[in-house]
Parts: sequence; structure tokens; C-alpha cells
Amino acid sequence: MSIFVIMKKRKPLILVTNDDGITAPGIAALVEVMKTLGDVVVVAPDKAQSGMGHAITINATLRINKVKIYDVMDEYSCTGTPVDCVKFAVNKILPRKPDLCVSGINHGANSSINVIYSGTMSAAVEGSIENIPSIGFSLCDLSINADFDASKKIVKKVSESVLKNGLPKGVCLNVNIPKLKFDEIKGIKICRQAKANWIEELDERFDPHGKPYYWLTGKFENFDKDQKDTDIWALENNYVSIVPTQFDMTAHKAIKEIEKWKI
Amino acid sequence: MSIFVIMKKRKPLILVTNDDGITAPGIAALVEVMKTLGDVVVVAPDKAQSGMGHAITINATLRINKVKIYDVMDEYSCTGTPVDCVKFAVNKILPRKPDLCVSGINHGANSSINVIYSGTMSAAVEGSIENIPSIGFSLCDLSINADFDASKKIVKKVSESVLKNGLPKGVCLNVNIPKLKFDEIKGIKICRQAKANWIEELDERFDPHGKPYYWLTGKFENFDKDQKDTDIWALENNYVSIVPTQFDMTAHKAIKEIEKWKI
Repeated sequence: MSIFVIMKKRKPLILVTNDDGITAPGIAALVEVMKTLGDVVVVAPDKAQSGMGHAITINATLRINKVKIYDVMDEYSCTGTPVDCVKFAVNKILPRKPDLCVSGINHGANSSINVIYSGTMSAAVEGSIENIPSIGFSLCDLSINADFDASKKIVKKVSESVLKNGLPKGVCLNVNIPKLKFDEIKGIKICRQAKANWIEELDERFDPHGKPYYWLTGKFENFDKDQKDTDIWALENNYVSIVPTQFDMTAHKAIKEIEKWKI
Repeated sequence: MSIFVIMKKRKPLILVTNDDGITAPGIAALVEVMKTLGDVVVVAPDKAQSGMGHAITINATLRINKVKIYDVMDEYSCTGTPVDCVKFAVNKILPRKPDLCVSGINHGANSSINVIYSGTMSAAVEGSIENIPSIGFSLCDLSINADFDASKKIVKKVSESVLKNGLPKGVCLNVNIPKLKFDEIKGIKICRQAKANWIEELDERFDPHGKPYYWLTGKFENFDKDQKDTDIWALENNYVSIVPTQFDMTAHKAIKEIEKWKI
């Protein structure tokens, strides 16, 4: 048997994380699928970390705790953010660079501008910074009782494609799945991030001492209505959306324009 | 006097924030310059928020406190992240959309991949999401005693240019200033974000009970050595770097490639 064949037989090593915390139903569904594809290591936050964006913990200490939840190769809960979890896994836990890093399945959409606030996607982006093919999965259903059956089929399909094809350097995938039965999903669209925004509403309340405090909330506004190449259009029309997502934030087209200012 | 002339005479309204906290010397320097350019409102975190990326506070409450530090139009400390501060300012505090949002001056560089971890830049990016011309300023000097003299001159120059020219939609500026006297600075370069990474080192220590904890630290690795169009090259060669930065994270070029997979 040639070395090539032996190498081909090595099972993929898969890192699983999320931002809803290691006990969320969404990560359980993700682990279940990944166990059918390779050797799984879970390193995930010990509590919900939604909205953490690409935060890292540099002014406080971190801890990890070995846990036994999912019967996988290795599993840890971490006191840090989703990005911390990926850094920990790559630098302290995994025996080698993983073949795939998956994050989610998030309870709630991460389409459009949400990508930038999303802890789920920040873990996938961090994976791609570390040069690991990485995918963030989100189901457009915030409920703790969300039905992940269709999602699991989509997760498997997309993950197999990434394991087979790899991903362009510096690119990860932002996969959003509509809240539908598998048979109702029309297909998968490769999209761009829709232009949208949150119109914030700071919900003011008063504590028992009469002092105000606030909950950050808001209304979502889509500036790309009816644009069929966007993730929001895909989701509204019963497709899974996949946005190739990069960490190069340079607005390359603006360089020439600003050079003209001659500051 | 025509309405046009009256409107032209209205002083610019400028929002100032940062990630090192409202009492950091860097924000004091920034406020000092902004007071020469317009009416200033400060909304900044009540404590250091470095490395917060684009985090927002959605699972906890927020508070703001009116303060009297800088003798400006209005000033508040906020318990949230830099992005929370911008959202608060725009939606609760400012009388109208500001003409400029500036963040910093950060104590330490935010060039290259640091843009994605940076609280300073996340505030500027949030400003651009809210359609406000926005700039993040960072001085490549971590010290509390950093000399902001040269920075103040650069900040004024760049801010005046942005007030005059505006910025392309969806674009903010990431300005990094080398640790040099003003006369030693060779000029300003409009750049792209250098390809780079942090090679993490998780510094393991043991608490008095013998249990391990970790500090996230690392070594910076530049994959774009000698590339003269990058921010790192500019800084290493005594230039101020300005990277036009966008929140559209779509890897547009990858869309066609991934469509070929026919998932």
C-alpha cells in the first residue's frame, strides 16, 4: 500500500465551536453531523457569547475545562469568546492543523450585516485567518426548540463539499438556513452579503433605585430589497444562502479615490 | 444672508469614542484636536475595551453616565463596548447625525489583521454602517506616556480632509501613526491591509490551588514583507498609513468559484 493511499485514508480532523455555548442544541446537531465525517474536537464557550463579534480576551485570563458531553475525540468548554476558542484549539489542544473548522449551528440568522456582530461567524473567520477551511452555520430560528433536521442535511452537504474542494485562501463560508422542512428548501444560492442595517432602539427601563438602564434592541432594515444576488433574498425565497466571507477589510476600490486628496 | 451661507456656517458635529476608556490620554488628545474643528460629543467606554472586535452587548444591560472631563458640548461614559457607544450616541444622545465620528487615539497599532480585533476600528466601522464619515486613529506606541504631539497634527490634517471630501459609502479610514517626532514622519500613504497573522502563545500559569489559567499572547507574523502597498510597509518606513476599510465582508471574487461546485 502506497503512502498516498495511507494518507488518503486518514480521517479528517474537525474542530467544532459556536457562540451559543457548548450545551446549545445547535452545537449538538453540528457535532452529530461532524462525527459522520471525521474525528471531532469540540472547543466551545461555557456560556452564550452572542454578539461578541471578533472579540478576543486580552485583559483577562482564560480557562479551559475538559468535559464529557458528546462522546468525541476531545472536548473542552472555554471561558473565552468564540475566537478565543479557535485560538486555544489550534495552539493548545489539537494534535495538528484541522482539516475543517465549523461553527454553529447558530440559533438565529447571521445573514447580511449580522456577519460583523456574529460570534458564530467570528470563529469561522478566525479559522480562515489560521488558514483552516472554515464554515459558520446558522438556522433562521432563535428558539431553543428549533428543528435542526433540515439543517443537519445541509450542514453535511456543504461540509462534504468544502472537505472535497477546499476553500480559496482567506475565505470562509457564511451559511444561513431558512426555517423550513428539508423538502420545502428550494436549493442553495451562493450570494453576496445584503446591504442592511439595524435601526437601534435603546429600550429604557428604571432600576429599583430609579436609575435608568438600557437594553440594546432594534429593527432590521434591508437596503437591498429585491436584489436577487443577496443572502436575504435567498433566505426569503426559501433557499439556503452561502456568502463567501473574507477578513481583508480593505476597500480596495477606494484607495485610488483617497489618494487624489493629496493629504 | 442666504440659507446656504447660514448652513455653511454651522459647525461640524463630531462624535468621539475609543476603546482604551474615556480617561485614556489618547482620547484626551483626540478631543483636543476635535474641539478646534467643531462641536464635540464624547461617548466612550468607562473602562479599557481593547480586543473587543465588533462586539455588542445584547445579553446584558447598558448604562450611561454623564461626565465632566473635557469641557465639550456633551460627554458620557458607557458600560458597553466601543460599538455600543456609537449606537448609544447616534440613537439616544446626539441631536442629529454627526458630520464625523472619530475613534482613538489608540495606544498601540491597529494595522493589518489587527483591524478585525480592534475595538477602536470597530467603532469607526460602526460609524460607517450608520452612514457617518468615520476614522479610527492609532499611534504605534502602547505606553500610557506616549507622546501624542505628532499624532495631533496628523489627526487634524486627516479629519479636515474627511470633513471636506466626505468618504465613499460604506468606507471608513484606519489611520496608523508611527512612533516618531512630526519632522521624522515622511508623509501619508494610502494602503491596503497587509496579510499577516498572530502566532498565538497561550501563556500557562497556575493559580494558588494548582489549577491552570492562560493569558492570550502571541508573535506577529507579516506575510507581506517588502510589499510597498501595505500599511505595515508604510509604518516601517516612517509613513502614516491610511487603509480605507469596509464592512462588506463578501469575498466577491470567490462567488463564481464556489458556484462551480454545484452543491
